Amino acid sequence: MNKSRLEAFSDGVLAIIITIMVLELRVPHDPTLAGLWPLWPKLLSYALSFLYVGIYWNNHHHLWQAVERVDGRVLWANLHLLFWLSLVPFGTAWMGENHFAAAPVGLYGVLLLGAGCAYYIMTRVLLANHAPDSLLARALGSDFKGRISLLIYAVAIALAFWLPWLSGALYGLVAAIWLVPDRRFEQVLAASVR
Amino acid sequence: MNKSRLEAFSDGVLAIIITIMVLELRVPHDPTLAGLWPLWPKLLSYALSFLYVGIYWNNHHHLWQAVERVDGRVLWANLHLLFWLSLVPFGTAWMGENHFAAAPVGLYGVLLLGAGCAYYIMTRVLLANHAPDSLLARALGSDFKGRISLLIYAVAIALAFWLPWLSGALYGLVAAIWLVPDRRFEQVLAASVR
Amino acid sequence: MNKSRLEAFSDGVLAIIITIMVLELRVPHDPTLAGLWPLWPKLLSYALSFLYVGIYWNNHHHLWQAVERVDGRVLWANLHLLFWLSLVPFGTAWMGENHFAAAPVGLYGVLLLGAGCAYYIMTRVLLANHAPDSLLARALGSDFKGRISLLIYAVAIALAFWLPWLSGALYGLVAAIWLVPDRRFEQVLAASVR
Amino acid sequence: MNKSRLEAFSDGVLAIIITIMVLELRVPHDPTLAGLWPLWPKLLSYALSFLYVGIYWNNHHHLWQAVERVDGRVLWANLHLLFWLSLVPFGTAWMGENHFAAAPVGLYGVLLLGAGCAYYIMTRVLLANHAPDSLLARALGSDFKGRISLLIYAVAIALAFWLPWLSGALYGLVAAIWLVPDRRFEQVLAASVR
Repeated sequence: MNKSRLEAFSDGVLAIIITIMVLELRVPHDPTLAGLWPLWPKLLSYALSFLYVGIYWNNHHHLWQAVERVDGRVLWANLHLLFWLSLVPFGTAWMGENHFAAAPVGLYGVLLLGAGCAYYIMTRVLLANHAPDSLLARALGSDFKGRISLLIYAVAIALAFWLPWLSGALYGLVAAIWLVPDRRFEQVLAASVR
Repeated sequence: MNKSRLEAFSDGVLAIIITIMVLELRVPHDPTLAGLWPLWPKLLSYALSFLYVGIYWNNHHHLWQAVERVDGRVLWANLHLLFWLSLVPFGTAWMGENHFAAAPVGLYGVLLLGAGCAYYIMTRVLLANHAPDSLLARALGSDFKGRISLLIYAVAIALAFWLPWLSGALYGLVAAIWLVPDRRFEQVLAASVR
Repeated sequence: MNKSRLEAFSDGVLAIIITIMVLELRVPHDPTLAGLWPLWPKLLSYALSFLYVGIYWNNHHHLWQAVERVDGRVLWANLHLLFWLSLVPFGTAWMGENHFAAAPVGLYGVLLLGAGCAYYIMTRVLLANHAPDSLLARALGSDFKGRISLLIYAVAIALAFWLPWLSGALYGLVAAIWLVPDRRFEQVLAASVR
Repeated sequence: MNKSRLEAFSDGVLAIIITIMVLELRVPHDPTLAGLWPLWPKLLSYALSFLYVGIYWNNHHHLWQAVERVDGRVLWANLHLLFWLSLVPFGTAWMGENHFAAAPVGLYGVLLLGAGCAYYIMTRVLLANHAPDSLLARALGSDFKGRISLLIYAVAIALAFWLPWLSGALYGLVAAIWLVPDRRFEQVLAASVR
């Protein structure tokens, strides 16, 4: 079974998710800069989600370069990930519209946690299909970043009902952790080529 | 005629269908968890349709790996399938907004039946292009799952006007039948490689 | 310059056009079959446009299989075609919402005429890049279907302000002409392979 | 690391951006030609943005044909460009709805300037990965068009608050400059192929 259609389909879904979020940035009636100002929480929320979907695309891209074997369970593990990410536009809009209020910030964290767990599950399903000394296994390693992200999401969800802004800052922190490109795959892949 | 553009176009349409359905999950005005609660029928409806579109993508992916030959009739059989699936977001929204009321649940079944018949027609058109001992013919076999699904959809549509919740459960049952990955193609394809 | 990205981009745009039109099929408030009934002009309009975009995708697919050479002018000729097609969802919605009234039916014809001319221009630009005995030139031939379609569109636009329903029937007629798969390319391509 | 998924993902995002803008062309209630007339600023705004996204796709297509090497920084430079372009539908809608008023025209220029800078940054990141005598370096050359465009955008933004129509004309001028296909890549690539 080849992996290229899975990659193409995932690219399609991620491209749509990252783009339709902008439809929530409704045009203000007032055609002045003052009319634009109240949009800042929505724009901030949009930028954060753009970053997250970008990170997922990036990581997906890196991870799947090392994948050698696909089966039906992997397809569903990938669709499970896309399901959580498909809800991100909803969470983004709710959070942006309500100026980062408690419940929307908490829900946003739940969506990130769901996507994070789905990504983790996908890597486990893939590892079960690959030898322990495969490129994939070596490149994933202990997946420290993946584990610590899940922990921070959980803390941020708990905090959301007292200090939603701190939760928002934690989401930004996890994004920053991932923004540093994941050198593991590049190094292992580079080493394996000639 | 090569099949890769047909696969790419189908992936694009399915990716858009699966993603734009989320636009119907309108953000509640009340920024609390209580405000989120009334969305559950829409979310359930969305999740069911996500599952169905995922199943179609999965089956399409498996089926087309075994396809060796494409002609103009196959292109239209595929577009016919995409037409029915393109109406799923409409059916999903109507069913979710009306708490699984009779007519929307019935319409949803009609859309599933339409898509199921279109898929069946597509397999027949493909089989007419392939030898009886081709990979495709052997992998499809008697297509028991496909036939039983059509029957269950028909029963569910008839039931919708008396017991819409039972119809909904039947839709879930068919999804569960398909969620089990379709091993036929994997086995036949695996056997044919080396 | 390779043609695969042009095909992929065109597939993406056509997939989105064909799918977002369904967003105009707004869910009725009345959850009964009676509530569904008034949607029929919108559904008919949608089905006609789905057919047209499907035809364009089909023809594009066939045409580009024979293309050997791409340059900057071809990219723009293709984008010009996509521009007209991108307005089809607008025309579809206006025509469906107004029960095939005169002006919307006329506008729909203008969009079809625009897309038809753009397709014609694209074939001329491509022919200028290919030898007179190339696959492309032989497969296109005199392009009778393309020319007659433009003529029918022009007649239908003129008729729209007196007999909009006749115009609509003419649009259906042109679609029927094209629905018959374009054997020219299949024959010429088949003849050229071994 | 291969570049094809980056190209596919960018194509997907650009295809969606170019297509969803049309959703802002809301259907008029009045089903007459007179009802269509007030849409002209929105249509003009849409056509300008279609042209700009088309130009970016064209240039992206040309540029990436010469790219030989991709790393994590390049992926982010590309996502940065897509971020600015993803805001174009918002700017387009605001400008079209307000008949090219000062603030919307200024914002549109800011988005074009942002996208232009992001494209410039992406070329610099790519050049850092390629030898000074690589195809990419030779094809980009001094990038005069890219630099002059940024300057014109800056002037147009400053002018927007006094002479918004002149700013709009300048945006059209830059589009015209780019509409002439970028022969640099075609020439250098052609020269490099046997």
